[in-house]
Amino acid sequence: MEFPSKLIENAVGELARLPGIGRKTALRLALHLLKAEMDTTASLAEALAKMRFEITYCNTCHSISDTEECAICANKLRDHSLVCVVSDVRDVIAIENTGQYKGVYHVLGGVISPIEGIGPSDLHIDSLVARAAAEDSEVREVILAISPTMEGDTTAFYLSRRLRDLPNVHISTIARGIPVGGELEYADEITLGRSIVERLRQAR
Amino acid sequence: MEFPSKLIENAVGELARLPGIGRKTALRLALHLLKAEMDTTASLAEALAKMRFEITYCNTCHSISDTEECAICANKLRDHSLVCVVSDVRDVIAIENTGQYKGVYHVLGGVISPIEGIGPSDLHIDSLVARAAAEDSEVREVILAISPTMEGDTTAFYLSRRLRDLPNVHISTIARGIPVGGELEYADEITLGRSIVERLRQAR
Ligand SMILES: [Zn+2]
Ligand SMILES: [Zn+2]
Repeated sequence: MEFPSKLIENAVGELARLPGIGRKTALRLALHLLKAEMDTTASLAEALAKMRFEITYCNTCHSISDTEECAICANKLRDHSLVCVVSDVRDVIAIENTGQYKGVYHVLGGVISPIEGIGPSDLHIDSLVARAAAEDSEVREVILAISPTMEGDTTAFYLSRRLRDLPNVHISTIARGIPVGGELEYADEITLGRSIVERLRQAR
Repeated sequence: MEFPSKLIENAVGELARLPGIGRKTALRLALHLLKAEMDTTASLAEALAKMRFEITYCNTCHSISDTEECAICANKLRDHSLVCVVSDVRDVIAIENTGQYKGVYHVLGGVISPIEGIGPSDLHIDSLVARAAAEDSEVREVILAISPTMEGDTTAFYLSRRLRDLPNVHISTIARGIPVGGELEYADEITLGRSIVERLRQAR
């Protein structure tokens, strides 16, 4: 694609580096910004830069936070004996939006992926174990809420092994099963099978 | 959607103002930037701001340009007797990418749309007429390359009326017809009809 301006070419190039944004979409976005008020672009550019440069992560759960301790970890009304382990901040947001969970979190920052060169030491796993094993630890249950992909399952298996010898800490996984409103006969076999096999808290 | 950080909430809010980007996609983009190097966000923010604040438009054809006269208008090898009228810079890029057109352009900046409150005076129509009517004008043909929507047809009709009394300036429209490789029997009736009726340069 040839562009009538280096400025627009650069902007399209940068936008097209974002996941799921091709060059045609990037051009559409760039032209939209050119048509809109200057303030629109200024606010967007400032919000992105501010987010990237000023964001911090919670010292305890590694979730995104504007402070050293995130609002969830700092909230005394949450159940600090329950720690939900997720790969990503997106999962925290998704679970929070259900309004069903009152415990706290631990964000791994990814999943174990030999292909992408991500090993256990690249993730916040040691800090999870330390958190659960600390002498004054309140943690009584670690819920593994990791997507059931091959890498996710590997990660969950690894975490189970690291955590299973801790006294007084139960390990559980989120239920995999038939979506609410879904009908049994339309579920794929693997999901249906898991929904039966994994119907109970994992035995340790 | 609740966010664990005001910084991310602002960034998602700004990204979600872009066309075709919902809040879920915006969150995915924001989290991608947080995971990537700081440079990625810095380059993106800078490219967008630089584009918006520094871009200029060609004095002659109103296309995007980094200079007062765009590279196409400044190119003596192009055929300056042929002016292709388009609504948008995107159309210039699309036509340039065909490699089939050697004339110059005139970018209207939109189409006449009473619903959106866009009238002829909001578009670069007077400057097109002036360009074609100038005593030293090289313009011999104005090609109307405007999308065949209702607004586009209205705009083309209006332009035809404004231009038809100019001596020595032909008006033509891009051929609407069967896409290359398309089969007649699968074409919709309106396209097929137009491909027959509009098979020749418009009579004046
Ligand atoms: Zn926290
Ligand atoms: Zn120009």
